Amino acid sequence: MIDLQRDGDVFVLRLDAGENRFAPDFLGAFEDALGTVEESEGPAALVTVGTGKFYSNGLDLEWLGANPDRLEDYLRRVNGLYARLLSLPAPTVAAVNGHAFAGGGMLVLAHDFAVMRTDRGYFCLPEVDLGMSFTPGMGALIQARLPKASAHEAMITGRRYTAEQARRAGIVQHTAEQERVLPVATELAASLAAKDGAIVGKIRRDMYGPALEALRGPVLA
Amino acid sequence: MIDLQRDGDVFVLRLDAGENRFAPDFLGAFEDALGTVEESEGPAALVTVGTGKFYSNGLDLEWLGANPDRLEDYLRRVNGLYARLLSLPAPTVAAVNGHAFAGGGMLVLAHDFAVMRTDRGYFCLPEVDLGMSFTPGMGALIQARLPKASAHEAMITGRRYTAEQARRAGIVQHTAEQERVLPVATELAASLAAKDGAIVGKIRRDMYGPALEALRGPVLA
Amino acid sequence: MIDLQRDGDVFVLRLDAGENRFAPDFLGAFEDALGTVEESEGPAALVTVGTGKFYSNGLDLEWLGANPDRLEDYLRRVNGLYARLLSLPAPTVAAVNGHAFAGGGMLVLAHDFAVMRTDRGYFCLPEVDLGMSFTPGMGALIQARLPKASAHEAMITGRRYTAEQARRAGIVQHTAEQERVLPVATELAASLAAKDGAIVGKIRRDMYGPALEALRGPVLA
Repeated sequence: MIDLQRDGDVFVLRLDAGENRFAPDFLGAFEDALGTVEESEGPAALVTVGTGKFYSNGLDLEWLGANPDRLEDYLRRVNGLYARLLSLPAPTVAAVNGHAFAGGGMLVLAHDFAVMRTDRGYFCLPEVDLGMSFTPGMGALIQARLPKASAHEAMITGRRYTAEQARRAGIVQHTAEQERVLPVATELAASLAAKDGAIVGKIRRDMYGPALEALRGPVLA
Repeated sequence: MIDLQRDGDVFVLRLDAGENRFAPDFLGAFEDALGTVEESEGPAALVTVGTGKFYSNGLDLEWLGANPDRLEDYLRRVNGLYARLLSLPAPTVAAVNGHAFAGGGMLVLAHDFAVMRTDRGYFCLPEVDLGMSFTPGMGALIQARLPKASAHEAMITGRRYTAEQARRAGIVQHTAEQERVLPVATELAASLAAKDGAIVGKIRRDMYGPALEALRGPVLA
Repeated sequence: MIDLQRDGDVFVLRLDAGENRFAPDFLGAFEDALGTVEESEGPAALVTVGTGKFYSNGLDLEWLGANPDRLEDYLRRVNGLYARLLSLPAPTVAAVNGHAFAGGGMLVLAHDFAVMRTDRGYFCLPEVDLGMSFTPGMGALIQARLPKASAHEAMITGRRYTAEQARRAGIVQHTAEQERVLPVATELAASLAAKDGAIVGKIRRDMYGPALEALRGPVLA
């Protein structure tokens, strides 16, 4: 479901569960993988990548439908994953091989940089069209990472962005053809892996202090 | 002075009082029109537009000069209008048919999107040249909506932006020839009118919580 | 070491101490020069410029190495210089004639606008590669002035930006050939000198209230 491999100094975390929705066991495997990266010694950077046409479609709405009483704990756990990635003591790059929707789009934004596939796949925050709003932490994450106009358009209209549109909107930093997404992301990560992870983590945690506080705070506003 | 018409799902609020300065009765009519939109049922979006060469020139300095003791209440009411527009449970588009100066420029920024006329008219925050500063709420609104460099330039230098300059500075999102400003704004609004207004309003209020708090707070810092 | 000349309405503050690192006497001379500008009467704007290939390389690490017990006071003083420049009751322009590294880069960001030399010189925040993080005030200054993506890249990767790269990243607003850097900066400053300094100062202090508070607060987080 989740596979963590080391390629030189770069950890490649492959999300391999179809739409890569955040089922509880998926979250558990993701958390374990981040733990491995956090505890590693020496130069390290992290790349995450999905499989097929999905990077991640975010919340597991089917599981939530069957477990409505666990909504609050579940959202806390998802927000906690974003916070942990944003706090990671290593550079991080998302290789956006396909759709990054809703919580999957926010997962992209919790990385330092993102490379997005050009021929297919959208970045989209469709919450407005699903009758959902954002937890305070999710809103803080999006607004801390996106240009104001892009956060506004993405959150208020639920627009679907192609890779090139996402790059122009400041959602991702790079685009690549399908077979180049992971290599480009890995090269970028490798170029940053020698940085002192403790310092990278501290600078990033300082930069995003308010967003991290919101991500660790109440999920129901 | 203010005319509210419904065109399919789109409410078109026409400001028709010359320079469209915020005289008390103008504000009253504007507030009433927003009330009508707020209480409407079914799909809805709002377009505002001025007449002739003015979108709005903002504060009614002549009235203020004659009523200096009412400055604080007056500024609270203007800030309240911005807050109400920013909180509106429906998508909003400003059709900037002409000059949008000072408080009229901030009115533009309280909409989701803006379409600006290309052949004439400026967006300008001339406060610095009028010996005025901004209320905390006005400053918060401008800084919450504009890219940092644009907020800085607009507020510190009082630069006049043409439509194309305003688009490049991230002040408006679209430009159009005179006769196309209102149609383009209306088409954009119509494309968003089917969104659940309650959700649009909640997402927007969550996004701009600190700006809304400032707009509803003290006007004299 | 520091030379302040008046050219019409424009004060030109030349930093002339090699790499223009912030030695205590350099800071004292800089503070005195700002005092002269603050106390001047009539139209005024400030241009700062370095000499040779350096605008400023920031903290005087050699002096700090010899005076480790004075770290906290020293950082407070540097942050205080940024705060004073950001509060200055006059428009300010940095003529970035050469390298602006670390604290020298932040000095650039404390000005209203910056003109950067095209043929050589980098803007760089190399803290991550020096094993350093940013004081809360420094982080707040950088994040208050740079687009989010640029602040992230500059702080997390320590990238060196040429003038053109810095302009595209929103770090500087203008670029010019070597011999034109100071003239362009001076012309820009002169065009703004007639603005009421008290108003410029108030608007800027209002805009950057949280950053100023951080710059005047604790340096060790």
